[in-house]
Amino acid sequence: MVHWQWFLRRRQLFYGTCCVLILYLIHGALIDSAQEDSQVDLRKELIFLRKQGFFQSKDPGASNAQIPTVFLIMPTYKRPTQIPDLIRQCHTFLAVPSFVWILVEDAPERSDVVSNFLRRCGVPSIHLNAATPEKLKIKTQQRKRPRGNFHGTKCRRHFRFSFFVCVRRIEQRNEGLRWIRENTKGIAGVVYFGDDDNTYEHQLFEEMRDTKRVSVWPVGIAGGVMVEGPIVDPSTGKILKFNAAYKPSRKFPVDMAAFAINARLFHEKPEALFDIPKRDGELEGEILKYFLDSPFDMEPKADFATKILVWHTRTSSAVLTQEKKLKEPSDSHIKYVWT
Amino acid sequence: MVHWQWFLRRRQLFYGTCCVLILYLIHGALIDSAQEDSQVDLRKELIFLRKQGFFQSKDPGASNAQIPTVFLIMPTYKRPTQIPDLIRQCHTFLAVPSFVWILVEDAPERSDVVSNFLRRCGVPSIHLNAATPEKLKIKTQQRKRPRGNFHGTKCRRHFRFSFFVCVRRIEQRNEGLRWIRENTKGIAGVVYFGDDDNTYEHQLFEEMRDTKRVSVWPVGIAGGVMVEGPIVDPSTGKILKFNAAYKPSRKFPVDMAAFAINARLFHEKPEALFDIPKRDGELEGEILKYFLDSPFDMEPKADFATKILVWHTRTSSAVLTQEKKLKEPSDSHIKYVWT
Ligand SMILES: O=C(O)[C@H]1O[C@H](OP(=O)(O)OP(=O)(O)OC[C@H]2O[C@@H](n3ccc(=O)[nH]c3=O)[C@H](O)[C@@H]2O)[C@H](O)[C@@H](O)[C@@H]1O
Ligand SMILES: O=C(O)[C@H]1O[C@H](OP(=O)(O)OP(=O)(O)OC[C@H]2O[C@@H](n3ccc(=O)[nH]c3=O)[C@H](O)[C@@H]2O)[C@H](O)[C@@H](O)[C@@H]1O
Repeated sequence: MVHWQWFLRRRQLFYGTCCVLILYLIHGALIDSAQEDSQVDLRKELIFLRKQGFFQSKDPGASNAQIPTVFLIMPTYKRPTQIPDLIRQCHTFLAVPSFVWILVEDAPERSDVVSNFLRRCGVPSIHLNAATPEKLKIKTQQRKRPRGNFHGTKCRRHFRFSFFVCVRRIEQRNEGLRWIRENTKGIAGVVYFGDDDNTYEHQLFEEMRDTKRVSVWPVGIAGGVMVEGPIVDPSTGKILKFNAAYKPSRKFPVDMAAFAINARLFHEKPEALFDIPKRDGELEGEILKYFLDSPFDMEPKADFATKILVWHTRTSSAVLTQEKKLKEPSDSHIKYVWT
Repeated sequence: MVHWQWFLRRRQLFYGTCCVLILYLIHGALIDSAQEDSQVDLRKELIFLRKQGFFQSKDPGASNAQIPTVFLIMPTYKRPTQIPDLIRQCHTFLAVPSFVWILVEDAPERSDVVSNFLRRCGVPSIHLNAATPEKLKIKTQQRKRPRGNFHGTKCRRHFRFSFFVCVRRIEQRNEGLRWIRENTKGIAGVVYFGDDDNTYEHQLFEEMRDTKRVSVWPVGIAGGVMVEGPIVDPSTGKILKFNAAYKPSRKFPVDMAAFAINARLFHEKPEALFDIPKRDGELEGEILKYFLDSPFDMEPKADFATKILVWHTRTSSAVLTQEKKLKEPSDSHIKYVWT
């Protein structure tokens, strides 16, 4: 039988064990209540984690295994649907790890609307601007689209004034590339070009992350067809042909949303920039030509190019025909800047 | 001076304390590595938390403080932009706690495309269907929109066949309300009616969550103006007037996206259902009339109705004019169901 003194001498061990248990329970309770909070504060948590992910990947010498960063260069311009379009992108990008959103305003200055938006959104971002040159803005009194050779530019009516703006977002994308060259030396990453009203599925960014040189995948509702993109032989993994109905003669018959480029290549070829293409609708080739001899050298992704993970959706421009019936603008009481 | 025996007798206390520290450190390390994983697995985490939130709120007797559940009833229909539109909604809703997405297909059967989509998305959801009655489908050989009195319905050309479909999504919304009545008795919640191409900011759902009877807020790009919604006196919190240019004579001059209704009210008034409105564009009044005598009884939200947290965006329908140039459909090699 155990002597009563044994208990006495072990009493302090018993107290110690009690301490462990109590501390453990308190800790557990704290974590539980934190979990309840996180139900409500999930978005803040997400933002925090995203930011962490960004800063970690800025330190390439860090010991823990790193995933390459996705750098998304996206032009944007002022219009009534701009903020809702950007909000939907924000909601998508919040759940993408190691991601930097390079938003380039098509304007002579960066706007407060966009910088307030980016602060509130919480996705790690870089806010730039580059104006479309005045010579590409065509003033007109007619309601007709101007005709003539604009060297592959697209013309659209300004949403408020009566002139057409003919743009191809060359300046904005080059401004993004300038930032890439200045800030990503030695960082493992991939560069992708986005439109602010396209639809991106989260998985798309995981597919492009390990691009060796240039990767490629199908794009939904692009080039006038349901799906535009490569057709791949699943047994060899090689591209057999490109499914394009719009200008199949293009050297690189793919949409801007169809490919990503390893960021390293932009440091290796400092001259690689967008320029006005010789023929309409061949802007993609303007950048791809620096890195590829043939479109068949691209690395197919998305399960041998059988999955659609990006869609060339477009947001209809706002119909504001009733505005003139009101005495003052309908948004005069609105804290319009999204804070 | 402390006797050496004091230390001997306290040695076990010292061991106990060491145990506490070691356990604490192990625990900390586990949590740290979990945080690293969650960088990559954030989406899974989100899905998990969302689901937890849903199941917790299904048990109204649970002891921990509950937030009311948002039940969003949303009609949807097959078209080329359907999946991208739903994906963007999914990305938004993933970060909304205590949320149930009631997606009602405008079709005689639930489709595999939508059920696969919902499974993959991970937002807690209910998949229903309700077909628009045949009499509201107007067959026509002409490419013209049919004219005549369709009792407030809207007619659009079917995206593939040459007939017009005149719908107002009454059947789909009523099917959603049927589910609410069968499944939410005794659950604190709020019912909201959504469109699958609108834009919702996360904060909107927090604003509507504590609706007492019917809450209201401004909607961006609605009714032909930049903002449609109530004007509120910030000193009293009372609604002064409704800013509507489109049919300001409507009894409830608000958009479908402008209000939410406490779920309890649908149990109190089992007869409250949508019906064909007497006049065009007054569908909102069809449901509001059951719960309110006057639009001024609504509870204004969104910082005295000065913030836009929802936009009536529309996705342009897909342009598939090049499809005919191809020998086989452009999507024949695609695993089209989004899995
Ligand atoms: O030819 C072009 O420039 C564009 O044509 C198509 O795109 P599309 O749908 O016609 O154009 P938008 O979606 O209206 O605009 C593409 C991007 O440029 C931006 N943009 C548009 C218009 C403008 O005046 N300025 C401007 O920065 C948009 O915000 C958007 O992010 C392609 O998808 C784009 O990649 C290409 O840049
Ligand atoms: O009058 C109407 O019925 C609709 O008019 C406007 O909406 P609008 O932008 O014109 O319509 P859509 O956005 O094309 O459709 C509204 C919802 O109904 C669904 N829908 C549309 C068309 C259809 O044939 N079947 C169907 O279920 C859409 O997927 C969407 O979720 C209003 O915002 C809607 O709340 C209202 O239901």
